[in-house]
Amino acid sequence: MRAFAVPLAVSAASLVVAFSASAQDLASGRWIDLTHPFNEDAVYWPTAEMFELEEVFHGHTEGGWYYTAYNFSAAEHGGTHLDSPIHFAEGGLTADAIPVEQMIGPGFVIDVRAAVAADVDYRVSAADIEAFEAEHGQIPAGAIVLIDTGRAGLYSDRAAYMGTAERGAEAVAKLRFPGLGKDGAELLVARGVGAVGIDTPSIDHGQSTNFETHVALMTNDIPAFENVGDMSALPPVGATIVALPMKIEGGSGGPLRIVAHVPE
Amino acid sequence: MRAFAVPLAVSAASLVVAFSASAQDLASGRWIDLTHPFNEDAVYWPTAEMFELEEVFHGHTEGGWYYTAYNFSAAEHGGTHLDSPIHFAEGGLTADAIPVEQMIGPGFVIDVRAAVAADVDYRVSAADIEAFEAEHGQIPAGAIVLIDTGRAGLYSDRAAYMGTAERGAEAVAKLRFPGLGKDGAELLVARGVGAVGIDTPSIDHGQSTNFETHVALMTNDIPAFENVGDMSALPPVGATIVALPMKIEGGSGGPLRIVAHVPE
Repeated sequence: MRAFAVPLAVSAASLVVAFSASAQDLASGRWIDLTHPFNEDAVYWPTAEMFELEEVFHGHTEGGWYYTAYNFSAAEHGGTHLDSPIHFAEGGLTADAIPVEQMIGPGFVIDVRAAVAADVDYRVSAADIEAFEAEHGQIPAGAIVLIDTGRAGLYSDRAAYMGTAERGAEAVAKLRFPGLGKDGAELLVARGVGAVGIDTPSIDHGQSTNFETHVALMTNDIPAFENVGDMSALPPVGATIVALPMKIEGGSGGPLRIVAHVPE
Repeated sequence: MRAFAVPLAVSAASLVVAFSASAQDLASGRWIDLTHPFNEDAVYWPTAEMFELEEVFHGHTEGGWYYTAYNFSAAEHGGTHLDSPIHFAEGGLTADAIPVEQMIGPGFVIDVRAAVAADVDYRVSAADIEAFEAEHGQIPAGAIVLIDTGRAGLYSDRAAYMGTAERGAEAVAKLRFPGLGKDGAELLVARGVGAVGIDTPSIDHGQSTNFETHVALMTNDIPAFENVGDMSALPPVGATIVALPMKIEGGSGGPLRIVAHVPE
């Protein structure tokens, strides 16, 4: 229904250059949903209110039509969700205020599965990111960086995924899962990335007691996506990430739907 | 970081043809957020549980870092939200099961502002849609059709937007706002559209007592987007709509983030 304004005088060869690295063609390729469903198994911090769905009506009405509706409730921070900068940064962006443009962009997927398989407490370092860049090029401003720890498949087994299935304040010290280290976060801040996602319950590793990675990102108004789904179908570079959170006014986070477009 | 596989032998002129009508370039153009924020003014059906945000913590922690978090609760059907087919169709798709591809696609914006200004109970008809098609071409399969009644600006004034600010079962008969008529819905079903959105509280007009438009769409597994935001910046054709709902397993709907990409 519309055409690019491509000057007819330019050669096909120069068009290839012009379109590479920038155009993101949604008409071909495929979409991958990186979102865990909200259900009774949705992962929440041991101290957070879990997701609940309450039936309002389900069945045939007196008027003759079928009807189903529910109410729901949860903490903002559970399931596949957004951490908005204000979650760990005074005056930081709230969930409704993060520009959409910041959460849509080229995806850079850093594979740390091998390191994590050897060390559940692994923290992704600046050196890991620099090794990725040595192979794939420098991560640009506006990138959506996703950390693939390979642990999304454990999600429905909370003890395996988080280190404990216990609930309450005493369970927090038992959390064991990998995260992004402070120096890795600082490098991504320096790169000017739009957002950082991970397939674990928190961008800080489970044993963190000072949440320094949250602070490093969020004091720079960079949001985090947590409990992201299985990234195994994503290329290291070339996908387009679209991450749209529930628009909670003043929210410190909330449910996130995150999808990736992968070219053919 | 990647290039289209464009054969260098083809001419620039043929490339223009190849890219028109299909390619959706996200690297230029701009994003428009069509989502009302969830806050105390968020619009809910008079009988539905409204959105509530409960503070869990806000301020500086003993550990030294700043921290904010909330819990939230609501009915699925309020604010800018999805009606999943199962909302009005037994066995219809639930919120988590609608393919992402069905909610991302080319936007077709049908402007009925003039008719609605003259009749608050206006129902968009098949004739309205055919008039749109006579000007802009037939709406294709997979289209995201948005109905612009011009009433999104009234959203924060519930009495003006819905016809009543009262709550409870007795208020339902007082609802006054435009919607999509049954024959209009049936034409969109015939077109094979992916989804239909409107800037009112319901895809059926406020005075509906049989919800025949919901039934017509949803028995064909076509979801609706309701309380969509201001569409005035959208072209009739040429935008790309991305609508991502909260992934509530088994849900009949839920909070929706809907954005539009408009080319330069």
